[in-house]
Amino acid sequence: MATSSSLRINADRLNKTLQSTCTQWGALSEPSTGMCRLTLSQEDKEVRDWLVQECKSLGCGIKVDQIGNIFAVRPGVANDRKPIAMGSHLDTQPAGGRYDGILGVQAALEVLRTLHDNNIQTHCPIALIDWTNEEGARFPGAMMASGVWSTKSSTPLEACWDTLDKEGMRMKQALEEIGYLGDTKCDHRENGLECHFELHIEQGPILEREGKSVGVVTSVQGMKWFAIRVTGVEGHSGTTPMPGRSDALVMASRLIAAVRDTALKTGLGVATVGVIRSDTYSQATIPAGIDFIIDIRCSTDEMVDQLATAIFKAFDAIIAEEKNGTSYSTQRTWGLPESIFHPRCIDAVRASALKAVGKDQIMDMKSRAGHDSAWTSRVCPTSMIFVPSKDGISHNPHEYTSPEHCALGAQILLDSVLYYDERVKNGEY
Amino acid sequence: MATSSSLRINADRLNKTLQSTCTQWGALSEPSTGMCRLTLSQEDKEVRDWLVQECKSLGCGIKVDQIGNIFAVRPGVANDRKPIAMGSHLDTQPAGGRYDGILGVQAALEVLRTLHDNNIQTHCPIALIDWTNEEGARFPGAMMASGVWSTKSSTPLEACWDTLDKEGMRMKQALEEIGYLGDTKCDHRENGLECHFELHIEQGPILEREGKSVGVVTSVQGMKWFAIRVTGVEGHSGTTPMPGRSDALVMASRLIAAVRDTALKTGLGVATVGVIRSDTYSQATIPAGIDFIIDIRCSTDEMVDQLATAIFKAFDAIIAEEKNGTSYSTQRTWGLPESIFHPRCIDAVRASALKAVGKDQIMDMKSRAGHDSAWTSRVCPTSMIFVPSKDGISHNPHEYTSPEHCALGAQILLDSVLYYDERVKNGEY
Repeated sequence: MATSSSLRINADRLNKTLQSTCTQWGALSEPSTGMCRLTLSQEDKEVRDWLVQECKSLGCGIKVDQIGNIFAVRPGVANDRKPIAMGSHLDTQPAGGRYDGILGVQAALEVLRTLHDNNIQTHCPIALIDWTNEEGARFPGAMMASGVWSTKSSTPLEACWDTLDKEGMRMKQALEEIGYLGDTKCDHRENGLECHFELHIEQGPILEREGKSVGVVTSVQGMKWFAIRVTGVEGHSGTTPMPGRSDALVMASRLIAAVRDTALKTGLGVATVGVIRSDTYSQATIPAGIDFIIDIRCSTDEMVDQLATAIFKAFDAIIAEEKNGTSYSTQRTWGLPESIFHPRCIDAVRASALKAVGKDQIMDMKSRAGHDSAWTSRVCPTSMIFVPSKDGISHNPHEYTSPEHCALGAQILLDSVLYYDERVKNGEY
Repeated sequence: MATSSSLRINADRLNKTLQSTCTQWGALSEPSTGMCRLTLSQEDKEVRDWLVQECKSLGCGIKVDQIGNIFAVRPGVANDRKPIAMGSHLDTQPAGGRYDGILGVQAALEVLRTLHDNNIQTHCPIALIDWTNEEGARFPGAMMASGVWSTKSSTPLEACWDTLDKEGMRMKQALEEIGYLGDTKCDHRENGLECHFELHIEQGPILEREGKSVGVVTSVQGMKWFAIRVTGVEGHSGTTPMPGRSDALVMASRLIAAVRDTALKTGLGVATVGVIRSDTYSQATIPAGIDFIIDIRCSTDEMVDQLATAIFKAFDAIIAEEKNGTSYSTQRTWGLPESIFHPRCIDAVRASALKAVGKDQIMDMKSRAGHDSAWTSRVCPTSMIFVPSKDGISHNPHEYTSPEHCALGAQILLDSVLYYDERVKNGEY
């Protein structure tokens, strides 16, 4: 039997399991290595069923909560303690990759397998968590289920259940249909965690550019989404003279360009318009209405608000300058406040990284993407481990992280859990 | 029995028939007076069936051609002559009004009713035509069926039959399902016309602004559509720094603004983007691809090409200035060359208008919208009669033309037909 401090995860097993389960459940057509594993879809059900069986075979107890979050708990010595958790998500974007979220869950499984193979008895129970609908790609609302669990999200359980997918199916019905509407309360106060670690790909270019292998994640930047509606006057494209037009799409175009220009000029953070919809389906019609969504992300909540204010000031100036009868309205649709991770978990990750690679391979960083860990950090100590994304690409079939970096991340995840467990056992935490 | 020269259409009957058939077949929900009567839909079938019955009851023979165009022909004395036609369309935009197209067909029916009631024997046969899919709103391709009939369109019959609607139904199947896949050849050389008159609403603000009641239409401006694809690089909205982005939507926005700016600056004509589509459905993704369509219309084909060239030159300058890895490609998708109407038909309309109202109520004008008459004008003498559109609005539920103007247009349509018929009878034409 290995001692805890010399335990090694099985890199080959991790990568084979990750690749084969992706090929089996949700792969896009060859030769793409992309994934479409929308939350609560048939593919998601099948990979969930497989995960539950694997965890059971490792001696874990399984809890499924009211929004489908799976908690696979391996008992420890002190079962009055809450579990030390390793969580991420198995769902993907409609054309996503094999690593975003999936790596975190597969690495957690590899940790459980390693503990099991080596008959390790931990002090605390150890949990693997598959958080439901992290992507928000089928049912709108990213990090939806960890938000409900934390009780800090502005969207409570019932409102999530009522969310509709594109086909008009309620999320609650989707949970029922795949058999993952559980009866465990989705509430950290009734189903709590000692702490939460998450291994994730960076999804950005910084680690690669800096030549580092590991990011010790200290915070998640603040984010807000605004739904914008531009209103003009519909008209026939042939018969309406250019000067008198109230063209909603031309105005929306000027505003979208201003979103980018303002973010660049102020340097406060990033601002993006990804989704746009025109009221008209006719090429021969001047659109009367355009909807688009602005995604704003900055290091602090204050900077998010400053950037939003600067963008809307630019909008007002454009509207005033054009004076063509168009107008716009805004609506806050979603937000994730800035999240500061916990020193205990950050220490665990940093110490474990230092055990695995040289100091020059490691950097502290903030996460520019949202993660379930942003919500868990509000109710229990949390940190994340980042590994490099090739070319910084994510939410795309070309998303790639090398097998070596996947294995390195899984090893650090294992060691972080053991580091934390040791300190609980010693009465330090 | 009235003499031809003193015949009066029945204004009340015309307007009642127009309103009641709109209410019955394709009306949007109250209180809107808008219409959704997509071509070859159930509503279109029912109004076609009604029209065929009405025309039969007036002694007309009915021919349906291979693309569903309905020719209702009232015999004349000289049945070796081809019919003098009154054509327009009964289909509408998804949220259109009660007058665009519909007025022209209903006025033609009122002319047939008036001839019938007064036992008028014309020299030539007189035809009412309902042209299929003028709007191109269900099966892409405006003025589709008159284009096939003229044999001058770049889209031949078989290609039209293969066109798909949003649900993926082939146009030929839609014709079969509603019973309007006829066996008359859709070809003017086999099913020809003496000439073609069309009463239509202006769909623009000019008559109203100039205080006129009738437009004598002398030409239709040239039009071209270009499908534009802007290509960038997909990325995560949170993790991709602003400076290095290849954001296809930001670039598309700059180009769309340039379409308007170039049309305004050059004064060559009108240019509009009505339809836009993003590759991404995710708010958290920088779009890698945006598609949009530019609709360019000018008095002459040469000006259309000049404006297109100016727009693409502006595009190239923007791409070169931004140098951010985005690019664009263009594809010609549809066009209608400039159409010059025939002096004989223009004279008939002008003389008939002068009979009905004072000279100060009449103006010559060009059509800025495309019409079936643009295609018929390529193979037989053609002209159009325009009546005012309230506020210039069309392709919109608020489209409105007063009952008085509708009746005035129908009277001029009747008189134009009789004027032309008289000259054929006298051997002048």
